[in-house]
Amino acid sequence: MTQPLTTELVCAVDLGGTNLRAANIDSSGCIHEHVKFPTPDTDKAEDIVDAVVAAVAHCETEAAKRAARIEAVSVVVPGSVQAESRVIVNAPNVPAIVDFELAEAMEAKLQRQVLLENDANAAALGEMWQGAARGSRTIVCLTLGTGVGSGIVLDGNLWHGADGTAGEIGHTSVNPFGHVRCKCGNIGCLEVYASATAIVRMTREAFSNHPASQLNSVAEGDLTARQVADAATMGDELALEIFRKMGTYLGIAAANIVNTLNPEMIVIGGGVSAAFDLFAPAAQAEMLRRAFPVPAARCQIVRAECGDDAGLLGAAWLALARV
Amino acid sequence: MTQPLTTELVCAVDLGGTNLRAANIDSSGCIHEHVKFPTPDTDKAEDIVDAVVAAVAHCETEAAKRAARIEAVSVVVPGSVQAESRVIVNAPNVPAIVDFELAEAMEAKLQRQVLLENDANAAALGEMWQGAARGSRTIVCLTLGTGVGSGIVLDGNLWHGADGTAGEIGHTSVNPFGHVRCKCGNIGCLEVYASATAIVRMTREAFSNHPASQLNSVAEGDLTARQVADAATMGDELALEIFRKMGTYLGIAAANIVNTLNPEMIVIGGGVSAAFDLFAPAAQAEMLRRAFPVPAARCQIVRAECGDDAGLLGAAWLALARV
Repeated sequence: MTQPLTTELVCAVDLGGTNLRAANIDSSGCIHEHVKFPTPDTDKAEDIVDAVVAAVAHCETEAAKRAARIEAVSVVVPGSVQAESRVIVNAPNVPAIVDFELAEAMEAKLQRQVLLENDANAAALGEMWQGAARGSRTIVCLTLGTGVGSGIVLDGNLWHGADGTAGEIGHTSVNPFGHVRCKCGNIGCLEVYASATAIVRMTREAFSNHPASQLNSVAEGDLTARQVADAATMGDELALEIFRKMGTYLGIAAANIVNTLNPEMIVIGGGVSAAFDLFAPAAQAEMLRRAFPVPAARCQIVRAECGDDAGLLGAAWLALARV
Repeated sequence: MTQPLTTELVCAVDLGGTNLRAANIDSSGCIHEHVKFPTPDTDKAEDIVDAVVAAVAHCETEAAKRAARIEAVSVVVPGSVQAESRVIVNAPNVPAIVDFELAEAMEAKLQRQVLLENDANAAALGEMWQGAARGSRTIVCLTLGTGVGSGIVLDGNLWHGADGTAGEIGHTSVNPFGHVRCKCGNIGCLEVYASATAIVRMTREAFSNHPASQLNSVAEGDLTARQVADAATMGDELALEIFRKMGTYLGIAAANIVNTLNPEMIVIGGGVSAAFDLFAPAAQAEMLRRAFPVPAARCQIVRAECGDDAGLLGAAWLALARV
C-alpha cells in the first residue's frame, strides 16, 4: 500500500544558453535535487535532447532514492514556443533547437508528457508564485540579461498570444529613431538599452566624455556590466550616468506597458537586476512622467526575488497546474 | 400569454463628445430605432444623465410600439471606467462626467441595471462581433479621431487591466524623444502623430517645405484632416507625405503591439480611417520592418467596417452577454 502524497513533486528543467539546470520542485515551492550542467555546445538538436533527458533521469533517480515520485515534467527554453505546433522559434542562444519539436523528442525518450514554455514567461510565473509578485495576478516580468526577455501574466494566466510569441517587450521600440539596431533587426528596442550588452556598449560610447572614469582603464573587450555596476556603486560618474540612462529607457517601456496593460506590478529580474538600485529611480520617475496617473500610481516597479530559480519555479508551477 | 422571444433586444447608448446616439439592437446585430442628439454642452453631470435617460426612454417607447421589450441597457463613454467603482476618469471630451458615477445615476432614474464601458473598448467588441474582425478572438482596435482611442480584446474578452484603465495605446510613445507633447503630458504619444488633430498639425509644420501644395491656400485655422486626405487623393505631394509619415508612426505602434500581444488583427477605425488607403501601406511596411516575423506575418492591419456604429454594437454585445 502506497502512502498518500502530502505534496506533489514535479521535475523542472531550465535550458539556458550557458547552463542546463534541473530540479524536483514540490507544491509548496521547495526546490530539491537541483543539478546544473553546461549546455552542450552543439548544432545538433539530438545532443540537446540527450542532455535534457539525462537531467530529468537524474532527477527521477534522486526522487526515487527518497521514495518520491515525479508527477510531471516541464522544460523552459530561451526561445518562443509556437502555440499549436510547439515548435521553438527565435532561440539565438541555443540555435540547435530552433525549428525543433523539443517536447515531442523528449516525450519519445521519457515516455511521458513534457510541458514546454519560454523561459521569460516561466520566470514571470515563478515570481508570481514564489517571488516579488506573490499575491498579484496581473504582472509583467522583464528579465534583463545578455538580452531582455519578458513574460506577461494577465489575471493569473500567461498571455501567449495568437501564436505563442507574445511577451517580447524587450523588442518594443523605446527609441525608434535612434542609431542602435537590435539583433532582431529593429531600431531602438528596449534590449539595446537595458541589457548587460547594452550597458557595456553605452559605457564604451561615453568614454570620450568621461576621461576621468576608472572604467577607461579596463582593457578593450574586457568590460562587463558587472564592472560598470561596481564602478557606479563606488561613485564613478560615467557609470552612474549609464545606469540613469538605462533606467530612463526602461521607464519609457514601463510607461507603455502601464498605459497598454494596466498591470499591478512590473518585476525586474535577470543578472542586471543586481544593479536595481542604480537604475530603478530613473525608471520609476520616467514611468510616472509618461503614463496616465491612475495606472501609474497602481503599478510598482520591483526587483525580482527568485534569482536564477525563477524559470525553474515557473516551469514547476505550470507542471503542478496540470497534475 | 406572451409570445416567445425569437431575438433578444438591448438598448445601447454611445455618449460622444459631439453627439449622443442610442439604438435598440437585437442579438443578430440589427440596429433599430436609432436616434442621435447633440451631447449637451454643460459642466453639470446631471444634464448628461437627463439626456442619456431621455435617449433610453425614447428607445423604450419605440420598442414598446412594436411590442418588443428591452432586456438590458448599456452605455459607452469617451473616458476610462474604473473597474470597481465604475467612476469615469480621463474624459476630456465630456468633462461633466469626470469623477462621476454615471451608471449609478442612470440606474436610479431608470430603475434597471446599466452597463458602462469605454467607447474605444466597445468599438473593438463591435468590430469583433459585426465588423472587420468577425471570426477573430484576439484583436486590437485603434480608433483614430480627434484623439486616438484603443481597445484590446484577448481571447474574446476585453482586457481592462487591474483598474479598468488598460488599452490606452494612443498614449504609448512612438517618438519618445521627439518635440511633440501630448495633452496627456507625455512626449511622442501615438495620438500626436495619428489623430485628425495630428494630421492638421503635421501638415501646417510641413508647409514651408512644400510651397506648391494646394493646402497652402487654406486659411489659417480652417484646415481639416479631411482636406488633407482629399488633397492626397488628388496627388498633392505634401498631403501624401503627411499620410506616409502618419502611417510610419502607426506602424511603430503596431510593431510594439505585435511583439507584446501577438494579436490576430489590428483594426483601424474612427473618422481618420476613411483615409486608410493613404496611410496603411506605410503602416504595414513599418510594422513588418520592426516586429518579429512570426507574429508580424500573422497580424493583419485592416480597416474597421462598423463606422460610427462600432461603439453602439460593442455596447449591445456587452449587454447581450449579460442577458
